[in-house]
Amino acid sequence: MALVVQKYGGTSMGSIERIQNVARRVAKTYDDGNDVVVIVSAMAGETNKLVALANEMCEFPSEREYDVLVAAGEQVSIALLSMGLQSMGYKAKSYLGHQIPIYTDNAFSKARIEEIEDKKIREDLKNGTIIVVAGFQGVDREGNVTTMGRGGSDTSAVAVAAALKADVCEIYTDVDGVYTTDPRIVPEASKIEKISYDEMLEMASLGAKVLQIRSVEFAKKYGVVVHVRSSFNDNPGTLVMKEDADMETVLVSGITYNKDEAKISMMRVPDKPGIASQLFSPLTEANITVDMIIQNVSNEGYTDMTFTVPRTDFKKALKIVQDTAGKIGAGGVISDESIAKVSIVGVGMRSHSGIASKMFQTLSQEGINIQMISTSEIKVSCVISAKYTELAVRVLHEAFGLSAGDAKAE
Amino acid sequence: MALVVQKYGGTSMGSIERIQNVARRVAKTYDDGNDVVVIVSAMAGETNKLVALANEMCEFPSEREYDVLVAAGEQVSIALLSMGLQSMGYKAKSYLGHQIPIYTDNAFSKARIEEIEDKKIREDLKNGTIIVVAGFQGVDREGNVTTMGRGGSDTSAVAVAAALKADVCEIYTDVDGVYTTDPRIVPEASKIEKISYDEMLEMASLGAKVLQIRSVEFAKKYGVVVHVRSSFNDNPGTLVMKEDADMETVLVSGITYNKDEAKISMMRVPDKPGIASQLFSPLTEANITVDMIIQNVSNEGYTDMTFTVPRTDFKKALKIVQDTAGKIGAGGVISDESIAKVSIVGVGMRSHSGIASKMFQTLSQEGINIQMISTSEIKVSCVISAKYTELAVRVLHEAFGLSAGDAKAE
Repeated sequence: MALVVQKYGGTSMGSIERIQNVARRVAKTYDDGNDVVVIVSAMAGETNKLVALANEMCEFPSEREYDVLVAAGEQVSIALLSMGLQSMGYKAKSYLGHQIPIYTDNAFSKARIEEIEDKKIREDLKNGTIIVVAGFQGVDREGNVTTMGRGGSDTSAVAVAAALKADVCEIYTDVDGVYTTDPRIVPEASKIEKISYDEMLEMASLGAKVLQIRSVEFAKKYGVVVHVRSSFNDNPGTLVMKEDADMETVLVSGITYNKDEAKISMMRVPDKPGIASQLFSPLTEANITVDMIIQNVSNEGYTDMTFTVPRTDFKKALKIVQDTAGKIGAGGVISDESIAKVSIVGVGMRSHSGIASKMFQTLSQEGINIQMISTSEIKVSCVISAKYTELAVRVLHEAFGLSAGDAKAE
Repeated sequence: MALVVQKYGGTSMGSIERIQNVARRVAKTYDDGNDVVVIVSAMAGETNKLVALANEMCEFPSEREYDVLVAAGEQVSIALLSMGLQSMGYKAKSYLGHQIPIYTDNAFSKARIEEIEDKKIREDLKNGTIIVVAGFQGVDREGNVTTMGRGGSDTSAVAVAAALKADVCEIYTDVDGVYTTDPRIVPEASKIEKISYDEMLEMASLGAKVLQIRSVEFAKKYGVVVHVRSSFNDNPGTLVMKEDADMETVLVSGITYNKDEAKISMMRVPDKPGIASQLFSPLTEANITVDMIIQNVSNEGYTDMTFTVPRTDFKKALKIVQDTAGKIGAGGVISDESIAKVSIVGVGMRSHSGIASKMFQTLSQEGINIQMISTSEIKVSCVISAKYTELAVRVLHEAFGLSAGDAKAE
């Protein structure tokens, strides 16, 4: 008998019929002899509807009230799923964040989980009750409702699994698992059987929207085995887990892309100490996250600085950088909103050389110009013109032998 | 400086625009120098939508989960109204039932308020914050979400007003106040300036759907002055308050009617001790509320028993009564679903005779047959054929001089 934590996202909970489908899945897991704790998101579209109401109400909604508002979506879901289970003859009980409680800090709308009490849940499990927990929400030490940001239910699930020392945390979504790349671009993309936490972190932050990043960090920290799978079929999905020897034999696990950034360059910057800080401090103050940064070697006392920012912050960032350029006497600012970041990820890179140069070569063979490069131990990212995104993903996927049926999928 | 509790119903909160209207009203009360605590219902239609989801999910939803579900409606309202107030520059803070807390018993979906902690609210009021409280919901001592039944927000408002010893509890609704009768039937119906708790209780239970009965009981118990008024204009409404000398001079305060009951008669019942209990116990066990009961004097050892039940329970009740009739050897059962109860209410009746006979005379002059009669200290009710309801209400309203402009409205 195992303790299984399952999480169902908004699409899986999107209608009464789908919630009944979820109830059947949960019941089957229970009938198989497991203790089951289910974490659910709001019904698809509900959170968006609530956010739209907030925006209609006022331009800058208070974060505290915003969290009270959007937490209502999950409250509806847990009640409906519990009713569904009960109508099938199972004992089921719903829990809101504050009822467990799931304690978080008080950073409204991006709260971090600090502590989860497991007492009540354990008691209910002991008498055979299926537990249904509202994802995405918690409560701070003063009793205020908090939420954890988009995708926060993943983190709720992993955190509950960690607190209960569950055997597995199954994340049900509308895809079969984590793929070597986006199947909409490369139909031959294959499902990854297992992937390390670090690779998944790179995949998640680079644009594969399967799991919230923080949930992977949490899983890594507490060693929670996460099983990403579909709620619409019974296929085995992808296991996100501790790195093992098998994984190292795979040089590249996946190809990701991200079209949500824009590029800004400040030209002919006087190259003296403190310049970088003068450039980036105003961006930080404006809460703009700078991703890749490149500084060319100095030439006659001047240098060029290029960096990327989220496209949603592009206009604000450009204005700030233009102001700064004037102040520090730079030559000018140029920018490009039509860029994409394409990346290869794999723990195997650590022990193999030549992966990066194979990437550059593959892109250049297709005439794709590389505008920026950034690397970590287990990934290489290139910024290219946005129009080449799909082409680049396809040729890299091919070059690193990731297609289903390729040799490496042995 | 006064402490004002205001309650806005679903219609007043029915859209972003209307919530903004509510925010302006609340702000005006605050600007006039008052401390303000606002209790709100779910946006019109929301609770019905949630109930429909529950019914779609399963035939007999668990009461605990039902309350978790429907409480979500008020959660949305409090957040939106707080945001609206904040966007106008006011300090505002929302409270869910469990955050105050509003403690209730654990009778889900019809919970009764036991205790309200006023500490947090008082602190917030001290620093100039407008408090927005979710109506209809509370929390039991185990931390379960509870709700108080339809119209429960009225009771929340009166209970909060009582706990805070507020100067007045204003109940905003879509009508101007309590009328002498239903203006849809009698266009000349006039607004009642002030009415005693007892009269209001009779009016509410007899079919005037302005205030939840329990809220009036609460107001009476704690002496809360309730001001029923419209959120769509600035007209003074109706004060529900302790009886005063003025009120006694009005013989009849209002005419009410109720078409939601049905009549059942058991004929030729053997008249021996215990018969009434044998007849009514099975109905009580089936949770059917019996309203009026008439037993004729015995004739040759047999009697007839007639009573009314809610029309929604009619079929169930009829079946039970037929079973009972067989068991106790009654002559037969006849029933009528097309009845109405018409009542006159007024504290003045206590000290004046002839009111009831004037009612009977008025009805008989119009050829309306009276099928059942029941009286209390301050009301007389007659059951008549449903088709005469409007006619009866009109002629009684006329006969007791209740129309606007009549002598008694001096």
